[in-house]
Amino acid sequence: MINENACALGSNRSVIRELFEYGRRRAAEVGPENVFDYSLGNPSIPAPPQVNDAIRAVLAELDSLTVHGYTSAVGDFDTRRAVAEDLNARFSAGAKPEDLFITCGAAPGLTAALQAVTRPGERVLVVAPYFPEYAVFIAAAGAQMDVVPACKPTFQIDLKRMESMIAPDTAAVILNSPNNPSGVIYARAVLERLAEILEAKSRQFGHPIYIISDEPYRELTYGGLTAPWLPHIYGNTVVCYSWSKSLSLPGERIGYVYVPGSAADQEKLIAAVAGAARAAGHVCAPSLMQKVIARCAGVRPDLEAYDENRRMLYDSLTAMGYEMAEPDGAFYLFIKAPGGDAVAFSEKAKQKDLLLVPGDGFGCPGYFRICYCVSPEMIRRSLPVFRALLEE
Amino acid sequence: MINENACALGSNRSVIRELFEYGRRRAAEVGPENVFDYSLGNPSIPAPPQVNDAIRAVLAELDSLTVHGYTSAVGDFDTRRAVAEDLNARFSAGAKPEDLFITCGAAPGLTAALQAVTRPGERVLVVAPYFPEYAVFIAAAGAQMDVVPACKPTFQIDLKRMESMIAPDTAAVILNSPNNPSGVIYARAVLERLAEILEAKSRQFGHPIYIISDEPYRELTYGGLTAPWLPHIYGNTVVCYSWSKSLSLPGERIGYVYVPGSAADQEKLIAAVAGAARAAGHVCAPSLMQKVIARCAGVRPDLEAYDENRRMLYDSLTAMGYEMAEPDGAFYLFIKAPGGDAVAFSEKAKQKDLLLVPGDGFGCPGYFRICYCVSPEMIRRSLPVFRALLEE
Repeated sequence: MINENACALGSNRSVIRELFEYGRRRAAEVGPENVFDYSLGNPSIPAPPQVNDAIRAVLAELDSLTVHGYTSAVGDFDTRRAVAEDLNARFSAGAKPEDLFITCGAAPGLTAALQAVTRPGERVLVVAPYFPEYAVFIAAAGAQMDVVPACKPTFQIDLKRMESMIAPDTAAVILNSPNNPSGVIYARAVLERLAEILEAKSRQFGHPIYIISDEPYRELTYGGLTAPWLPHIYGNTVVCYSWSKSLSLPGERIGYVYVPGSAADQEKLIAAVAGAARAAGHVCAPSLMQKVIARCAGVRPDLEAYDENRRMLYDSLTAMGYEMAEPDGAFYLFIKAPGGDAVAFSEKAKQKDLLLVPGDGFGCPGYFRICYCVSPEMIRRSLPVFRALLEE
Repeated sequence: MINENACALGSNRSVIRELFEYGRRRAAEVGPENVFDYSLGNPSIPAPPQVNDAIRAVLAELDSLTVHGYTSAVGDFDTRRAVAEDLNARFSAGAKPEDLFITCGAAPGLTAALQAVTRPGERVLVVAPYFPEYAVFIAAAGAQMDVVPACKPTFQIDLKRMESMIAPDTAAVILNSPNNPSGVIYARAVLERLAEILEAKSRQFGHPIYIISDEPYRELTYGGLTAPWLPHIYGNTVVCYSWSKSLSLPGERIGYVYVPGSAADQEKLIAAVAGAARAAGHVCAPSLMQKVIARCAGVRPDLEAYDENRRMLYDSLTAMGYEMAEPDGAFYLFIKAPGGDAVAFSEKAKQKDLLLVPGDGFGCPGYFRICYCVSPEMIRRSLPVFRALLEE
C-alpha cells in the first residue's frame, strides 16, 4: 500500500518552491523585468572558472573508468586529502582524510549525521529561524524536533532558552551559521557560552550532545568577518558542508560530513554516518565532481556581486524604515514585516509582483526573507515597490 | 547517542568489498598479473565517447548557472523527455516525462520506491539469488524481507514457492533481470505467469502488490536476447534504472524511477517516491549528468568485450566440468561450487589468488559468482587455476 507519510511529503510543495514557480508564470505573463523574485536561494554568480577548467582537465588526463567509475563509499582519497589540507590551511583543523565522508550535497549529509547521532524517539534542538527541511530530516531519523525561539532583534542564539530546553534525551543541536534565513553569523562569544552549556548538560545527562553544524554558507561572509570554526570551540561537532554556494554548484550534489578527531566515539560516529548513508542508498558521491573538488578544494568564491547587492538592499531598505538584523553572511536579509503579519505583508507584496518568503516556515513569524542572489537591476527596479508597500 | 544500527551497517563491510580490497593488497605484493580478481561488478569498458563529448558540449554551450544549478527535484524536463522518448522508441512504453523521477543512481531509487509502496511492518519478497543490499534497503523502509528460494538449475523464478509465500501484507516483489548474480534473464512466460499470480493475490487481499523492477543490466544482454519490458506484462510495475552499467557511469550516480501510467494510484505513487527521496536528502540528481543524459538517452553500449569474455569463460569452464545457468545477461556467471560448499571453495581459490564471491550473501549457498568485466588476458591466465581447483 502506498505510504501516506511519503505521499504527503512528496505532495506538500514547499512555500518557497510554490512562490518561485508562481514567479516564473508571472514573468511569462507580464515580462520578467516586471517580476521581483526574491524567493529562491539559488546562486546567481557562476562557478569560478577553475571548476569547468578542472572538468575539462579531468576528462583530458584520466581514462573513462577512472573518471566515471565507483569510488569508495567514503569518497576518493585524493578528494578527502585535498579537503583536509584546505581545512588545515584555513582553520588549523587538524583534519585527516579519514575524518571525511564525501556526500551528494549537504542534505543527505545532514540526514546521515542526524541518523548517526540519534536513536528513535530522542530529541534534536534547532534554533529559530531555521531551514524548514530540518523538520523533514529529523522526522526521517525518528527523532523529535524542539525549536529554540529566535532571539530578536540580533538573531543570535537565545542561550537561556536553549539551556532550559535541553532534555535528558536531547541528542543533538543543529546550528547554521551564517544563517539561512537571517544572514547572521553566530558570534564567537555566543558559541563559546553555548559550548559551556552543552558540556555541562552532557556531563549532567551522561552522554555527549553533538552539534551538527550545517555550513553551506561558511565562505559567504562580508565586511572582513568570518564564521568561527566550531570544532575548535566545541569538540563534539559534526560539520556538514556543501559546495553548492561557495562554488555555485548546487545542482551537482557534492559535499561532505567531517567528524573531527575531537568528537566522542569518533570512529563509531563515522561508521554510523556511513551506515545511515548506505541505508539511504548512498553508494558514492558523483565521481567526476569528486575529482573536480580534489583540484578546487582551495578555490574561494568571488563575492563582490553578492556584497554589492547586500549593501544596496540593506542601505536602501533601512533608509526607508525597514528593520533587519546585520546581514553579515549567506545571501539573505530577514526583515521585520511592517504591520507584524509577514504572511499578509508577503501576500500584499505578491500583488505587486514582489516575491518575499514569510518567516513562518522558518519558525519565525513576523519577518520575511529575501534572497539577494539576483541581478542588481532587479533590485533597483524593486525598490519603489518596497517603498510603496511601506507607505500603504 | 550513536545509533548502533547505523554503526553496524557502516562497520560491516560487504564480503565483496573486502575481497576486492584484499585483491588490491595482493596485487601490490605479488604483482597484478598474478591476481585473478573476479569480485567486483565494476564496468571494464569505457563510457561511450558520446558521454564525454556531451560533457564538453554542455560546458561549451550552456552558461554555468544552467549547467550546475539546481534542477527541480524530479529532474530536468529535457532529461525526462529524452528518457521517455527512448523508452517509447524501444518498448512502445507510452511513457510521459511526468512518469519519471531522476535519481542519484539505482540505489536511492530503490530505497525511495520501497518506502513509497510499503508501510512499516509490511512484507517484501525477493527472489534468490538476489543483490545483498536489498536487505538493507528493505530494513530501511521498516519492512520485512521474505526470500523465495532459487530455482535450480535454471535460476528462473520458482513460481510455486512465490505463490505460497505471498501474504496478506506483502506489499511488493523485487525483481532483477538480467540477474545479479546469476546472469539469467527471466523468461517472458515466467513473467506472464507471475503477473497472473500477482493479479490474483492482489484481488484476494484487496490491495495492489507492486513489482519493483531493478534494471541496471537491462541493456546488457547477449546472443540477440532481450529482457521483456515488465510494465507491459504487469501494470503495477515500478522500474528503477541506472546508467551505471549501460553507459559505464557507476560513479556518476544517475538513474531514474519510472512509474508507468498503468500503475495503481500512479499520481500518489510518484508523490510518495518524491517524498521518500526528500526524506533521504534528495534535492536533485547531478545536474551536469542530467544534461548529458538528455543528449545520450538513446546511446547503447558496445558489449562486444563483455560478450567475448562471457563466451570464453562459459565455454572453457563448462568444458572443464563446471556447471552454471545460461549467462544471457549482465556480466556475471553463477557457478556450482565443486564439493558443494561455496565458502570453502572460494577460500581454496583465494589461496591461489583467484577471487570468487560465494553465493551465500546472495541467498544462494553452494554457488559462487564471477564478474567477467575484466581483461581477457586475466581470464586466460586464470583458466589453469580453475582447472587445478577442480582437480584437487
